Amino acid sequence: MSAGSDLAAIRERKPLVHQITNYVVMNETANATLALGALPVMAHALEEVEEMASVAGALVLNIGTLSAPWIDAMLLAAKAANAAGVPVVLDPVGAGATRLRTETAKRILEEVQVAVVRGNAAEVATLAGREAEIRGVESIGSTDSGAELARAAAEALGCVASVTGTVDHVSDGERAIAVANGDALMGTVTGTGCMSTAITGCFLAVAPDRPLEAAAEALVAFGVAGEDAAVGARGPGSFHVALYDALYGLDPGTLGSRAKVEE
Amino acid sequence: MSAGSDLAAIRERKPLVHQITNYVVMNETANATLALGALPVMAHALEEVEEMASVAGALVLNIGTLSAPWIDAMLLAAKAANAAGVPVVLDPVGAGATRLRTETAKRILEEVQVAVVRGNAAEVATLAGREAEIRGVESIGSTDSGAELARAAAEALGCVASVTGTVDHVSDGERAIAVANGDALMGTVTGTGCMSTAITGCFLAVAPDRPLEAAAEALVAFGVAGEDAAVGARGPGSFHVALYDALYGLDPGTLGSRAKVEE
Amino acid sequence: MSAGSDLAAIRERKPLVHQITNYVVMNETANATLALGALPVMAHALEEVEEMASVAGALVLNIGTLSAPWIDAMLLAAKAANAAGVPVVLDPVGAGATRLRTETAKRILEEVQVAVVRGNAAEVATLAGREAEIRGVESIGSTDSGAELARAAAEALGCVASVTGTVDHVSDGERAIAVANGDALMGTVTGTGCMSTAITGCFLAVAPDRPLEAAAEALVAFGVAGEDAAVGARGPGSFHVALYDALYGLDPGTLGSRAKVEE
Repeated sequence: MSAGSDLAAIRERKPLVHQITNYVVMNETANATLALGALPVMAHALEEVEEMASVAGALVLNIGTLSAPWIDAMLLAAKAANAAGVPVVLDPVGAGATRLRTETAKRILEEVQVAVVRGNAAEVATLAGREAEIRGVESIGSTDSGAELARAAAEALGCVASVTGTVDHVSDGERAIAVANGDALMGTVTGTGCMSTAITGCFLAVAPDRPLEAAAEALVAFGVAGEDAAVGARGPGSFHVALYDALYGLDPGTLGSRAKVEE
Repeated sequence: MSAGSDLAAIRERKPLVHQITNYVVMNETANATLALGALPVMAHALEEVEEMASVAGALVLNIGTLSAPWIDAMLLAAKAANAAGVPVVLDPVGAGATRLRTETAKRILEEVQVAVVRGNAAEVATLAGREAEIRGVESIGSTDSGAELARAAAEALGCVASVTGTVDHVSDGERAIAVANGDALMGTVTGTGCMSTAITGCFLAVAPDRPLEAAAEALVAFGVAGEDAAVGARGPGSFHVALYDALYGLDPGTLGSRAKVEE
Repeated sequence: MSAGSDLAAIRERKPLVHQITNYVVMNETANATLALGALPVMAHALEEVEEMASVAGALVLNIGTLSAPWIDAMLLAAKAANAAGVPVVLDPVGAGATRLRTETAKRILEEVQVAVVRGNAAEVATLAGREAEIRGVESIGSTDSGAELARAAAEALGCVASVTGTVDHVSDGERAIAVANGDALMGTVTGTGCMSTAITGCFLAVAPDRPLEAAAEALVAFGVAGEDAAVGARGPGSFHVALYDALYGLDPGTLGSRAKVEE
């Protein structure tokens, strides 16, 4: 795993990460992207998404607050990204909670080439056709273990599946990597899942030919930042603030040694 | 007042609180909901609001950044909530400032059954047909006292009126409860009013048959959190952060004893 | 320069600053406006923007997340502002990055009277027809010096040009003022540029007949707040929080003496 050198590459190259994401977390994912060292840009108009996506280092799609024009924009942007060789990450927020979300996530996966799907167990299980329970956008449970689920989803969806939870599991259908970095406080702040997707986009931008590793490294980096942020946090508010400080302060020289990964 | 046991119920049941709210505060009300112990979800597409609202514990409508499709979504969601017995809270942000806001708030109150209207004095006075002055979304003054206004508005609107200010007043037209918890710093952060509406939704979700108490308890909980957050705050930024920590740290065991309520 | 007395006037009069801005920074610019001492309001519906803009102290337009209905709303609001003598500030976020953004910014400048354009070097250079490079919404470089660019843009666009960077440059085409206040951490938080535009609106609201000074004073005030916020900041997160505390704590009595301006 080259988490440290890939983080160094993000900071040096400052890739543009085009995000078509939900209203709730736009500021948060932009700040997480910037704190890590990449350049975020949000653009959703049909008139500009192709132009923006095709010059980006990665495209992040997040269906957290969908509506018809945004679905059109996501598909248009993703097709332009595909044509330009720009990797696409999908965050299927709330898939399983409403038909609109489930069908939109499936449609994106069918119509464009997605490099990584990053979601919680219930969201990914829904898309992979397996049993799961979701309340709103929160995973309540899935019958598979994380590793099984990631592997099955990667096979079913034909892309890397990145399933986050207490322990995260990333798979390309063959290999499966478990990432145990992170802190329980991450679940108390809205949008930490969305931030991990944005950070996945940052790592993909510098390692487009290694999507499995990029996805795992992103979760290591975000998890280590979460561990650092938890030190001294008094609750979700102070943890949230410290998370940006910690992302900004991540040390490429020690990141790899702090990874809690198992393959 | 059972503020403590209702807070404990929120934390145990984690009710889903569906919010169709304004762009400015989406992240803030989601984080306040989560810090308190409930599960927020934002969804505004016509294609999914009925599905989401009917499985929620409460529906929160907030007209802070309106447009035509959002008005349609609010009405559709609220009708589904009504049909499913899910309580609806309305935050008439800026009613009195523009015709669109005044008329939309009135239309919602006429077409669907609202359990609680939570607003500042000028907003609630506008809807109740009384004199008031508003600048943008800030109440500049109203001729009624808070208690009179809450009582009159509850009667006129046929629901619980929750009027927040230096002292808050909640009434169902018969009883009137004054809540004196809170801190002046709450007025220096955008969206604290909207947060109090979201928290009203959380309490309504566990006490749908006691809307007057739920509305008062929500203001007690939010006010106590504001008091805790003010300790050590150096201004609106640090207060805002500490507010989430304080909501997360609210103690069901002592909440009732800290309530500054008068009936 | 009367930065101190203009800040005192903002706090006393609490002007309404109507903002039609991007989704990413709405909460941030609202909180910056409020922390400074003015009253923010966000409204973008065609049905209400004229009503809101014509009673405001200033109108802020920011094209950071454009779409067709928002462009229409901006033009409608700005025409109402012009008719009512309300000054208009434009933040051409990402002009130069896509045709939609470049053309929309130009169209606004042609169809309505803008008092101040506030942008980074690449954005302003694009509008003034000069060479520049932008990556997403980040200025990568421009061939002109800041002072030359501000002067040339003011002449070309017929309004005050406010070009922010390590040193900011403001010009009305004749005079040029350099502002060296600020801190490098400002570049690590999304939306600090947008905040400076909102604050420009606040100063314009109390000095509508002195747009050059208002624009420079806003950058002094924001820069001084940035200097204060940087003390003790551990990264972008804690800096961001401290920035609101610092805006709130700005002292009209000493602001002028802390200005690092050169004309």
